[in-house]
Amino acid sequence: MIQETSKYLRSLGVIRPTVILDKPQILRNIKKMAQKARISGVKFRPHFKTHQSHTIGDWFRECGARAISVSSLDMAQYFTDRGWRDITIALLANILEIDKINVLSSTIRLNLIVDSMAMVQALHAGLKYPVKIWLKIDVGYERTGATWDDTQTIVSIAKAVLHYPKMHFVGLLAHSGQSYRARSTEQVRQVYNQTVKRMRFVRKILHGYGVKKCKISVGDTPTCSVIENLSAVDEIRPGNFVFNDLMQEQIGSCQPNEIAIGVACPVIGKYAQRQQIVIIGGAVHLSKEYIVDRQGKRLFGYITDLEGDSLGSIYKTTPVRTLSQEHGCIQIDDRDLFDQIEVGNLILISPVHSCLTCNLFTKYKTLQGEIISRLY
Amino acid sequence: MIQETSKYLRSLGVIRPTVILDKPQILRNIKKMAQKARISGVKFRPHFKTHQSHTIGDWFRECGARAISVSSLDMAQYFTDRGWRDITIALLANILEIDKINVLSSTIRLNLIVDSMAMVQALHAGLKYPVKIWLKIDVGYERTGATWDDTQTIVSIAKAVLHYPKMHFVGLLAHSGQSYRARSTEQVRQVYNQTVKRMRFVRKILHGYGVKKCKISVGDTPTCSVIENLSAVDEIRPGNFVFNDLMQEQIGSCQPNEIAIGVACPVIGKYAQRQQIVIIGGAVHLSKEYIVDRQGKRLFGYITDLEGDSLGSIYKTTPVRTLSQEHGCIQIDDRDLFDQIEVGNLILISPVHSCLTCNLFTKYKTLQGEIISRLY
Repeated sequence: MIQETSKYLRSLGVIRPTVILDKPQILRNIKKMAQKARISGVKFRPHFKTHQSHTIGDWFRECGARAISVSSLDMAQYFTDRGWRDITIALLANILEIDKINVLSSTIRLNLIVDSMAMVQALHAGLKYPVKIWLKIDVGYERTGATWDDTQTIVSIAKAVLHYPKMHFVGLLAHSGQSYRARSTEQVRQVYNQTVKRMRFVRKILHGYGVKKCKISVGDTPTCSVIENLSAVDEIRPGNFVFNDLMQEQIGSCQPNEIAIGVACPVIGKYAQRQQIVIIGGAVHLSKEYIVDRQGKRLFGYITDLEGDSLGSIYKTTPVRTLSQEHGCIQIDDRDLFDQIEVGNLILISPVHSCLTCNLFTKYKTLQGEIISRLY
Repeated sequence: MIQETSKYLRSLGVIRPTVILDKPQILRNIKKMAQKARISGVKFRPHFKTHQSHTIGDWFRECGARAISVSSLDMAQYFTDRGWRDITIALLANILEIDKINVLSSTIRLNLIVDSMAMVQALHAGLKYPVKIWLKIDVGYERTGATWDDTQTIVSIAKAVLHYPKMHFVGLLAHSGQSYRARSTEQVRQVYNQTVKRMRFVRKILHGYGVKKCKISVGDTPTCSVIENLSAVDEIRPGNFVFNDLMQEQIGSCQPNEIAIGVACPVIGKYAQRQQIVIIGGAVHLSKEYIVDRQGKRLFGYITDLEGDSLGSIYKTTPVRTLSQEHGCIQIDDRDLFDQIEVGNLILISPVHSCLTCNLFTKYKTLQGEIISRLY
């Protein structure tokens, strides 16, 4: 199939490293998550940092999404320009960008995240229009957020937000990034259950201090993909599931056939003695994110293939073992497969972390040849 | 100094992650390498993939550079548009881009690299205008190139190149990327000496087969920075030295004060209990390249500072310990330093690998406030 895949990619006009999208699979991924949110009765606020594309955003809208998450104010502006009117900047507020905040909050329902009094006070000093405020809670990831059992800090920040007229307190927000350390769906479930338990604990504390309206927002692809019923929370913000990748598959939050992207890369070198091929497909195309395989070795991707005009099998005997700036070096122990690949072919690489891979490109190409632009 | 640095960066209008250049230090780095090439009597063909900027390219031209290396045909076109007329695509030729090759070779002196008969024959079939051809030799890095002692392959490829009228054989080219595994200048010297020995061995073999004119081109920043006299080769192609970074400093190929870039990042979170601060400065700003410190721990950067309007000290007690898509989490065990940093500050991060970091941005800003565009 390697030669058929190469020919098909050539027929699309691919000559350089190119992110290839399996659009029907992307639509299935979106529909599945949107439906789960609907059945669970939770608000679907997908994170658009993974795709950063007007067109792919439209596919979400067609599946019912009306609110989104983004990771910068520039990204919020980009999607505001496409008609999105309810956006969360899913990162602690950057008070240095107060002018951009004021531009956005004058036209859309802008949601900001805080976790410190310093930030609340700086926002109070700079805000011109009302914004929605979420209090970030650290439920175990230890990155940002007030620690879930640090009642004093949580209560004082919530009270300050409630006190300032331009800040409308909405609720508590968590990102359980520790789910990415899970290596089984059971471990993902534990992360989710702990997250819900701790978020409800905080909500109860705030209730005791008179905060009666307090939503709970969570968002990471592993928990949102694995948990069947998410009704214990009010809002979900997963992003990666739109494309998925090898990391999600290793965690158990997607099946191999749910990975909806590949990176087409030209083969430039073939080395029979070490059974390696070298592609133009390096750190500037795939990113240096890696996973560790069962032998304890790092890898940056696997060769994948097409089945008709869909993404097909992933060849787990073909790890991208080393990655320099523009080169990827693939170990192919399967001699038959090695013999099929020639210099000048295009091969598809299933990436480790689709968010970081896509961030290195300015556009996508679907398997039907459609070019899809993205923010850059 | 943290507060002074933050104020200075604010005065430059920085509000988002921004690559900051110390232009006088960059000029010193360029002059030093250009002078070494001149004194050694070797051709200086700096690799422009590190900066990918017309303006910074001009600084090289002012220091006497007339030939360059790039890592893609699009990058070659970008620099051709700025008047460069002698360019090596320092990557095995991508025969799928034969049309771009023909456009470039119709106007400039284009140098391509080959290491297989398949590639030579595909070029022969597609070339419209003469190009210079270098034969890539693998001197120990085990990425691309004909293995230095594989005489049969080397001779047959060289003969084929000499046979085809549109290919002008220039010589042998190596990239001793194994120098990046060195952790002392002594180890770098060993890599260089072995490279020279093996390249001369190959040249002698070819001489015996009637190949009388055969240049030797090498190029990696560690060897070119460490070796005082490079006259054993004909051409050098280092790139990273223009900016340097923590990886070069760890190898011993630059001094801390020769690192000429930093990434300005807003502080968005501060966590007294774990003595950590969180910045907007993640994998999409710094890249996931890391080095390992003396304690065996991975790190993605250190806080650095300004001294006047130059880059100053690097605080080695401030490792960026974890990196997610947009967040960097910095461990600051020095309590005094930790206490100086506030949410809303801008801090400078000294990056691990400047090539990959700069690739994530579309422009630079100098410490004098000049905006410098780059290819994207």
